[in-house]
Amino acid sequence: MIQVSSIRKERSQSPTDSVYVHNHCKNPKPLNVTGAYIVHDENDYRDSLLPDTKDIALPNHTESVNEISIDIGGSLSKVVHFAKNKEGGGRLNFYKIETSNIEKFIAYLKEIMKVHYHHDGVNEINENLTLIATGGGSYKYYEDLQKQLNCRIQKEDEMECLIIGLDFFISQIPNEIFYFDENNHTYVETEIPESESETIYPYLLVNIGSGVSMVKVTGSGPDNFIRVGGSSLGGGTLWGLLSVLTTCNDFDEMLEMASKGNNEDVDLLVGDIYGKGYNKIGLKSNHIASSMGKVFKKVFRKTGQSESASSDNRLERLQNFNQQDIARSLLYAVSNNIGQISYLQAQRYGLDKIYFAGSYIRNHYQTIRTLSYAINFWSEGSKKAYFLKHEGYLGSMGAFLKKELDNDNA
Amino acid sequence: MIQVSSIRKERSQSPTDSVYVHNHCKNPKPLNVTGAYIVHDENDYRDSLLPDTKDIALPNHTESVNEISIDIGGSLSKVVHFAKNKEGGGRLNFYKIETSNIEKFIAYLKEIMKVHYHHDGVNEINENLTLIATGGGSYKYYEDLQKQLNCRIQKEDEMECLIIGLDFFISQIPNEIFYFDENNHTYVETEIPESESETIYPYLLVNIGSGVSMVKVTGSGPDNFIRVGGSSLGGGTLWGLLSVLTTCNDFDEMLEMASKGNNEDVDLLVGDIYGKGYNKIGLKSNHIASSMGKVFKKVFRKTGQSESASSDNRLERLQNFNQQDIARSLLYAVSNNIGQISYLQAQRYGLDKIYFAGSYIRNHYQTIRTLSYAINFWSEGSKKAYFLKHEGYLGSMGAFLKKELDNDNA
Repeated sequence: MIQVSSIRKERSQSPTDSVYVHNHCKNPKPLNVTGAYIVHDENDYRDSLLPDTKDIALPNHTESVNEISIDIGGSLSKVVHFAKNKEGGGRLNFYKIETSNIEKFIAYLKEIMKVHYHHDGVNEINENLTLIATGGGSYKYYEDLQKQLNCRIQKEDEMECLIIGLDFFISQIPNEIFYFDENNHTYVETEIPESESETIYPYLLVNIGSGVSMVKVTGSGPDNFIRVGGSSLGGGTLWGLLSVLTTCNDFDEMLEMASKGNNEDVDLLVGDIYGKGYNKIGLKSNHIASSMGKVFKKVFRKTGQSESASSDNRLERLQNFNQQDIARSLLYAVSNNIGQISYLQAQRYGLDKIYFAGSYIRNHYQTIRTLSYAINFWSEGSKKAYFLKHEGYLGSMGAFLKKELDNDNA
Repeated sequence: MIQVSSIRKERSQSPTDSVYVHNHCKNPKPLNVTGAYIVHDENDYRDSLLPDTKDIALPNHTESVNEISIDIGGSLSKVVHFAKNKEGGGRLNFYKIETSNIEKFIAYLKEIMKVHYHHDGVNEINENLTLIATGGGSYKYYEDLQKQLNCRIQKEDEMECLIIGLDFFISQIPNEIFYFDENNHTYVETEIPESESETIYPYLLVNIGSGVSMVKVTGSGPDNFIRVGGSSLGGGTLWGLLSVLTTCNDFDEMLEMASKGNNEDVDLLVGDIYGKGYNKIGLKSNHIASSMGKVFKKVFRKTGQSESASSDNRLERLQNFNQQDIARSLLYAVSNNIGQISYLQAQRYGLDKIYFAGSYIRNHYQTIRTLSYAINFWSEGSKKAYFLKHEGYLGSMGAFLKKELDNDNA
């Protein structure tokens, strides 16, 4: 169990990092959210440089904004910035790109700065501009960012940004939160808290990026959250496995494949072990006993015998299976597993609301359904899974809401 | 949560199964275990038809034994039988073979019957012989077994057999139980209970075959255990993935590969995200943030661009990686995950002793170390992982200890 406040202490001991003290953000930067709404544009998810839809219109925010925020994760880098409208107000813009393309990402940040943060009428970057950076990559790429971007960079604590971002989406943005209705197989938008007597706390945040972090949140402010656990079986595992097990070229192709597959051809079901129609250990016969549990048998049934280990026959072996079935199986395996561990952590700390966020989800039907089903199955209906339309932007949104430190403090 | 007693109830409703009522085994069949010891022979694990070492000598058991027991799992089938010595006493023999070779397994059972269970001096099978069968396959292959083996078959509840087998190994067989000593990197044999004031209960049994079952055990007898959970990420997942990601031909080759690999070339570590020397979220820099989390990036860094989806370039993609590294990464991923869920279940039910069993473990150093480490890490030393030399034979051993029902009852 990692208490975030103890991490902060450790951090201030690092002399190279001493300029970047934490702004604890008890009062996040005020954005005028009156009349805010999510913009539903046509969009293409495939090109990560295109807007990721779902801009948030802030028709009544008129104050000038002197910052851009970024969140550089293990797999994806995200940016949030505010673009003014000529007619007044403006939009929060959300973009993401794979972290492996860090140079493209930096070039893109330069472009945003040139277009949106120049001095009025002069094509020169505003010297008051601050880049607020979070995520592991803000440390790893700090020097690159500093060298290439002519602006101040303010690093912020990742967990804190996640929570601030989530709190903002939950409490300030209408139609942001939804859950999956298993009876009708639909998404249902909901307001949190659902009644006036409730608050949004406590809850478990499960952030699924390359890996998984689970954070117990009992109130606003930096002393009210703790990272209670995590898992190394996350998006990076699914994407990594599918990048060698399928011919897909990106995450979205993988998800599209998964949506068309039938896991029963590669997973070992309870019914495969016990025979049909016999419910031996109280599990349904279509319950997955072993993910990918049919693969070994099928690979070796074909040849009957062991083959020479010297020939690389892996492609032949792979071609025994439908790529889509493998994608479906592994999507289920990773999602079910995250659902189960999340349930156990929520159970342990008495939390009934579980928010799933992070770029793993990508608004994908099977993923959302599987996570919801897992929480419902394990908790026997006592706990509920919630999702966000801006699932991948909690950290970058939270960073955006951090107050810039003025030069004297920095 | 599945109460085993409720399953039993459901079971008796099945008319086709009504002959095979449960023998609750409050008094397992007496074996004379005075002077029992584990026989350490030279052995070859590779040929599953060879004895699996670790016979148990019962020098003082003289009563005749009229049964063989089998456990047909999703991936492996096991058999236990008693072979008399000419000099007196005898040995419990343990064998296993892949369930995909079910015909070979049945042929092998015939052979055992012919050699060990014929009428004295006459090469004809003893008509009193009973085959006690457990595991999912005892249902699925029941008719095959009945057709091909000329003997009575008595089916027994899988969970109950597991527990009876484990209790027998814990309490009756010296030098059976061991744990991993992290300080000295050695296995340490231990007696349970470790002191006279303790009992062996309560404990969590984690049985890892193709899938994983977790059973909370609070005492002997059929009313004192409950299957509290499980996971579809088990041996079948590891073997299935490695049978297409490596050129290995069997489980043991895979484990040998894993023992030589370096997971840091395919797993994304905390240090890879945060940069070196910076411990941001309280996790060590060599902590695995995302299993297989470097694979996606490496696959696509090489080509720089997406490739045509029409060409099957999976072998080229796979050849970017060392097979041994993949084997190590996935062995860690599955083992860590089982360790974490086991810890959470043990925590939930207040259990401090966790027994890991099942054919997944195969006495493999990294597997045992990883499971031990996970329990120790998550429980901060308050819970302990135990292992068994006959890890894969709990179910078949438990079945062996069931009393044969006499013909009138059957």
